[in-house]
Amino acid sequence: MGKLRIGIAGATGAVGTTLLELFIAHQDPVEIVCYASAKSAGKTLTCKDQDFVLQPFDVEHAASCDVVFLCVSGDFSLEYGPLLAKNSTVIDNSSAFRYDPEVPLIVPPVNPHSFTGQTLIANPNCSSAIALVVLAPLHRQYGIEHLTLSTYQAASGAGKPAMEELVARTGAFKDYDRTFKSDYFRHDLAYNVVPHIDQFQANRYTKEEMKMVWEIRKVLEAPDMPIEATAVRVPALRSHAESLSIKFTQPVTSLDAVRSLLAADANVEVRDDIENNVYPMPVTSTYKHAVEVGRIRHSLVYGEYGLNLFVSGDQLLRGAALNAYEIYKLVYK
Amino acid sequence: MGKLRIGIAGATGAVGTTLLELFIAHQDPVEIVCYASAKSAGKTLTCKDQDFVLQPFDVEHAASCDVVFLCVSGDFSLEYGPLLAKNSTVIDNSSAFRYDPEVPLIVPPVNPHSFTGQTLIANPNCSSAIALVVLAPLHRQYGIEHLTLSTYQAASGAGKPAMEELVARTGAFKDYDRTFKSDYFRHDLAYNVVPHIDQFQANRYTKEEMKMVWEIRKVLEAPDMPIEATAVRVPALRSHAESLSIKFTQPVTSLDAVRSLLAADANVEVRDDIENNVYPMPVTSTYKHAVEVGRIRHSLVYGEYGLNLFVSGDQLLRGAALNAYEIYKLVYK
Repeated sequence: MGKLRIGIAGATGAVGTTLLELFIAHQDPVEIVCYASAKSAGKTLTCKDQDFVLQPFDVEHAASCDVVFLCVSGDFSLEYGPLLAKNSTVIDNSSAFRYDPEVPLIVPPVNPHSFTGQTLIANPNCSSAIALVVLAPLHRQYGIEHLTLSTYQAASGAGKPAMEELVARTGAFKDYDRTFKSDYFRHDLAYNVVPHIDQFQANRYTKEEMKMVWEIRKVLEAPDMPIEATAVRVPALRSHAESLSIKFTQPVTSLDAVRSLLAADANVEVRDDIENNVYPMPVTSTYKHAVEVGRIRHSLVYGEYGLNLFVSGDQLLRGAALNAYEIYKLVYK
Repeated sequence: MGKLRIGIAGATGAVGTTLLELFIAHQDPVEIVCYASAKSAGKTLTCKDQDFVLQPFDVEHAASCDVVFLCVSGDFSLEYGPLLAKNSTVIDNSSAFRYDPEVPLIVPPVNPHSFTGQTLIANPNCSSAIALVVLAPLHRQYGIEHLTLSTYQAASGAGKPAMEELVARTGAFKDYDRTFKSDYFRHDLAYNVVPHIDQFQANRYTKEEMKMVWEIRKVLEAPDMPIEATAVRVPALRSHAESLSIKFTQPVTSLDAVRSLLAADANVEVRDDIENNVYPMPVTSTYKHAVEVGRIRHSLVYGEYGLNLFVSGDQLLRGAALNAYEIYKLVYK
């Protein structure tokens, strides 16, 4: 058997590039094919000193890959995902198939058992994946009764050019310019906070907020869990943070027990040393595989039946590329 | 009777200057004395083209004022507040007396009746005041059973030099510099999110978070209302935002009724036209007297007994100086 052939559709985007970095860093003995738009095809993508000639995406060519990562739009995934899944393992980073009951939605540290040989596998939304790594051990131990989240989401969720736009805007900042039209956000993000990510739904929640509801329920296999979210873009670069208020069915009698439970999980880093100003932040969680958790305290509404937490995780790693890479490792373990 | 004499202790700070701007804008027929530190005394403070010679603070001189605004530290207020209140009306912007049952804590649009002739009056914390303007009409109509808040607080809460540091840091930004020591925040705020404002308390909440708990209860006259908050600094300049999840005792049967109720309040601006991407944001609420409210939707946890909201208000106006100015107008109406 030769090397596995890995195709990455959307290799030049923020998620595709991060995925490529993970394959290179792990020195996996694989052949990588980088697909890009017709405009970029033929150009060379350099990643960690390795050169990749960009291929134009072609479904017949991609069908020669053992694994195809789709780091592109939902429409692209809808068109090519099922087709490619006939011969290849397709790991789809879009939301196209996440809510399809036939398609497993996998956060490998949480629900690896949901992979039972399917060839089309969905990768979760960034904010969902980051929260889930922390929520899963708590749910197993104490049983989540309901959940309220407010997010602090970085520019990277809108791609590399969005990050560049933010840095350029803040660098040139003089005063709020209300006439500026962002190419990537609905409003200028410089020194701003924008409570609007993805489209509004009929219930007046955004799709980003509902993704968190639907995905946390699906991955925790708790289809009726009441969850509400407020998804907010802030001028951070590539790590999201989230404020969580959780009501449990079982009492949480000791915060030390919570810290021990979470610290035992290799995918979680407990940063809860408030005496030394240590807690989760984008500046510390960036480039980190583990999700940071801290500000662990009993709820002032639910007493010992509730916790307030703060988490931060790298949007491009646990929120996207690392999770997708771990799905590949789960399939080819 | 001559002109009222108004003293502002801390006139060169962000709150003091904003207060001065309000007096000038309203063309109140008063004499204003600007007090500053010994270092600044004798210098001229220019505000909206008017010059004020800075006086060194002296308690006997300040006692000649009819009203003294204390826009300084809590320690300063503790030392001079009660002394000055023997002869003058003292409006204290620090937290020193806010939780004293003998001292009224006033948000004029909410609890003007709590002023019954006292000469020492406390001005609330910025995040409390901004939330309260929106919470009060909702509490009167539906009865708040409990409340969860997560804040997105601007740099201005740490003063003018903190705002300048943030702009300088983001302007010069190349990559996260984890060695940088901020003079004003516990961690570099550039492209970051810091879940730590004021000191940690024994219950692991910060004092900023507990201020919101204590002050919302006191102003709403609901001493047992369960409230929990997560207070977070974000790289915005001078407007805070807050994500609120509210459980009510009465059902909220119509979101239109909520919008009408809030729109009828002159201190609130409903920005909830999601079809046109209109919702509260720091970039729009800055320099505005009203608190913006939007993203009004039913709770996914409490159904029609709950609402999720997003608010944004100018930290230096409703959050501090405007509220203090309105207290003065309440005393001298």
